[in-house]
Amino acid sequence: MGKENKVQTAITPTRSQDYPEWYQQVVKASELAENSSVRGCMVIKPWGYALWENIRCVLDNMFKQTGVKNAYFPLFIPKRFLEKEAEHVEGFAKECAVVTHHRLQEGQDGRLIPAGQLEEPLVVRPTSETIIGESFSKWVSSYRDLPLLINQWCNVVRWEMRTRIFLRTSEFLWQEGHTAHATREEAMERTLQMLDSYAKLAESYLAIPVIRGEKTDSERFPGAVNTFTLEAMMQDRKALQTGTSHFLGQNFARASEIKYQSAQEKEEYAWTTSWGVSTRLIGAIIMTHGDDNGLVLPPMIASSHVVLMPIIKKPEDRSPVMEFTHALAKALREQHYHGRKIEVEIDDREIGGGKGWDWIKKGIPVRVEIGPRDIAQNSVFVGRRDKGPREKESIPRDQFIKTIVLMLDEIQDNLFDRALRLRQENTRHIDSKEDFYTFFTPKNPEKPEIHGGFALAHWCGSQRCEEKIKADLSVTIRCIPQDAEQETGSCIACGDKSTQRVIFAKAY
Amino acid sequence: MGKENKVQTAITPTRSQDYPEWYQQVVKASELAENSSVRGCMVIKPWGYALWENIRCVLDNMFKQTGVKNAYFPLFIPKRFLEKEAEHVEGFAKECAVVTHHRLQEGQDGRLIPAGQLEEPLVVRPTSETIIGESFSKWVSSYRDLPLLINQWCNVVRWEMRTRIFLRTSEFLWQEGHTAHATREEAMERTLQMLDSYAKLAESYLAIPVIRGEKTDSERFPGAVNTFTLEAMMQDRKALQTGTSHFLGQNFARASEIKYQSAQEKEEYAWTTSWGVSTRLIGAIIMTHGDDNGLVLPPMIASSHVVLMPIIKKPEDRSPVMEFTHALAKALREQHYHGRKIEVEIDDREIGGGKGWDWIKKGIPVRVEIGPRDIAQNSVFVGRRDKGPREKESIPRDQFIKTIVLMLDEIQDNLFDRALRLRQENTRHIDSKEDFYTFFTPKNPEKPEIHGGFALAHWCGSQRCEEKIKADLSVTIRCIPQDAEQETGSCIACGDKSTQRVIFAKAY
Repeated sequence: MGKENKVQTAITPTRSQDYPEWYQQVVKASELAENSSVRGCMVIKPWGYALWENIRCVLDNMFKQTGVKNAYFPLFIPKRFLEKEAEHVEGFAKECAVVTHHRLQEGQDGRLIPAGQLEEPLVVRPTSETIIGESFSKWVSSYRDLPLLINQWCNVVRWEMRTRIFLRTSEFLWQEGHTAHATREEAMERTLQMLDSYAKLAESYLAIPVIRGEKTDSERFPGAVNTFTLEAMMQDRKALQTGTSHFLGQNFARASEIKYQSAQEKEEYAWTTSWGVSTRLIGAIIMTHGDDNGLVLPPMIASSHVVLMPIIKKPEDRSPVMEFTHALAKALREQHYHGRKIEVEIDDREIGGGKGWDWIKKGIPVRVEIGPRDIAQNSVFVGRRDKGPREKESIPRDQFIKTIVLMLDEIQDNLFDRALRLRQENTRHIDSKEDFYTFFTPKNPEKPEIHGGFALAHWCGSQRCEEKIKADLSVTIRCIPQDAEQETGSCIACGDKSTQRVIFAKAY
Repeated sequence: MGKENKVQTAITPTRSQDYPEWYQQVVKASELAENSSVRGCMVIKPWGYALWENIRCVLDNMFKQTGVKNAYFPLFIPKRFLEKEAEHVEGFAKECAVVTHHRLQEGQDGRLIPAGQLEEPLVVRPTSETIIGESFSKWVSSYRDLPLLINQWCNVVRWEMRTRIFLRTSEFLWQEGHTAHATREEAMERTLQMLDSYAKLAESYLAIPVIRGEKTDSERFPGAVNTFTLEAMMQDRKALQTGTSHFLGQNFARASEIKYQSAQEKEEYAWTTSWGVSTRLIGAIIMTHGDDNGLVLPPMIASSHVVLMPIIKKPEDRSPVMEFTHALAKALREQHYHGRKIEVEIDDREIGGGKGWDWIKKGIPVRVEIGPRDIAQNSVFVGRRDKGPREKESIPRDQFIKTIVLMLDEIQDNLFDRALRLRQENTRHIDSKEDFYTFFTPKNPEKPEIHGGFALAHWCGSQRCEEKIKADLSVTIRCIPQDAEQETGSCIACGDKSTQRVIFAKAY
């Protein structure tokens, strides 16, 4: 593609040319994942799955430190279980995979057809409140059994009509935490504690700044009393949820009969919570940090940290270059980086000059070229993914080894700062309806450019105003921010009195 | 249950009274898992799931060290994919969960009924050769893309008619490795290498001695050229498979069009392998080590290593006993045990004397009682799960901390040795048909006692003889052992010439 000569980007189109298509091309070029032959289901390739493994490792440790234990519940949910909670079934029955048979057998034309019809259809879990509730009702009988703190890492299925890799797929991987408590206060505390864990994951590991807040009635988890959320701004100014935590009150405890005998020997319903994040977070990483040359991975969660690229032009160079490379890899791998070892790739493919660009597209934080000239100087030629692809510098080998952790920390900080700046530059306090509509309207509706952002505007609290704005602009209330000051004002839609600003945005 | 006074066991019935029922009772008493409301699907409780997490951690490291990378493929397999390999579809179509609809909607009676029929039914993966083959065919084009070494940790579903917790469940968790190679030799080498990894897991971690061997035609994985297996003897003398590795030849490469251009620019089909172990291994742990007081966990894979049980009879004891307990826990947790930290439980439930028995039933390797008298002597009162429940001894605190790793190693070795001895004592070279039939026939057919074992007997190689023995005795050929000497003899069934002994046994 002649990238070396022209000022051209590795990804076509660029973000500003066509953001949705840029996203698809980054997923492809970085080899994170691909669509499968099964509608809406993706194949997560090793480079993408490593991200999920790292996310899982970070969260799993956080969960376990707060006393949560992992368990595993059935993939299938009997139809009657889903029906137990009215809002819940309403929210999930419309898009679910239904198992109706337990056999394939040859039909008259010799093709296989479903056979052995089940007495009761089974739904592939879209979420597990009802099936886990069934177990909880058996496990809880006394206040001594509480709190019950359980998490599950698994796959779930929601039969989405319009799918988009990582962001909205029919099958996705996630964790779902489910807890039961003796008091409302304790359940609410747990709900918010888990939101904090997700915020820590987002900000300290994924380098994604987030806003904590509460969902409005219309955006709540079906069956929940309160849904708390983290909202992040993507580079196209749209919001993406990076974690939700639900206070379920006693709704699911009633539906599943999760009851306990209190210390005063009174029978009470438990208070429950649920909370989850999914492989959607990988979409958030792509859209927060990616650039026109591909993926950009935050070191704290990167699939790998450093790639070493031996440059061998003459056969006699092979042996010294490879020896130097392997010794360097060993020295780097011995270093600790925030609880992980530094992970090092060696790319010894014999494909000429394209290696560097392959790794830029894959978003690895640090690239190192090693040729005979570098070895002669006992130095390495280093490129960082937070800088331009040609901004490379020669660094003495030993200094590089000594400063690699610092370099990764710098990259991590730069990515976070850049994302925070973007959000700050595109967050507005808006007080007039006209400004609000202008903010969210592209100048060229034929080929909409990147526009909008987070609007902090007053809202009267009515669902009608929320729906009006959604209908007019495809803009929704992302959350009622947790730390917002009370402030009187007028609803951006109807002008009625309001006591607090909320965050409006277009969203994924 | 008055266990403290009578010579009674914690599990009723005992192994010799009713082995299958003993198994169910151990699963229950140890809180490993329970049956769910979904036919054949289990709930894996935290104590059981921790075992699976430890198995996963051990294997995942082994896999990664040999260059295998994790990825994730769709849960659903289109019907036409399954149909690609004739033997394969024959083996798996008979018992599978079939998704036919993607919605539930209210029927005329107000109940939910399946709606939105799919154009093509989807099967919930019973195994993923065909769907992974689809990806491999895209990922492989040149010999440079080989070998391709992929593993997936996931759930699979096989609609079993008769289920038994951990041993045969409709849904289970497993890993499935899938590799593609340029040559037959390399693929065969990988097949055997992974069998070695499983053998290491079984022997060094699960403390289960295994026999490596090859399956006969009738017991092979549907579509494979060779299936290699590990066979272990359970305490009821039946065999249980603790890992299989399949050499698939070019069968699946042809079915899925996995082709590559060789260095000589010739188009060739790749050679593929697949290999897996599942949550069935937890059943193997239970049945290899469990005793009439419950589960016995090998320390190398145990959900936790040590339980500390503070004994508080007077309120003024609480503070010093708890302080001592927490300090001891901290000191133990700082110790390394073969790449893990020592894991310590503190059981401070106020339930009187039953704590010790709860932990015996759960199989924790070491139990420590801590009361005011122990503290006065700066000692602890220690019980080991490889010894009798009352065989406890007082050990000075510091000595206990210093020798805990050694103690765990001893327990691990004792469990392995005991299991090996059982297998040796119940493995026979059998040369007459009469002896063979006697060996495998219970003395009391009304209430069959534990009988049989592994019979090393000659077999002519014919499927007819295999089927005859299976029909007569429910005994099958578990494997043709890898390390068996060539030896001439007569087939145990028909008397024809044979060149090698094989292992016959009843099996799970």
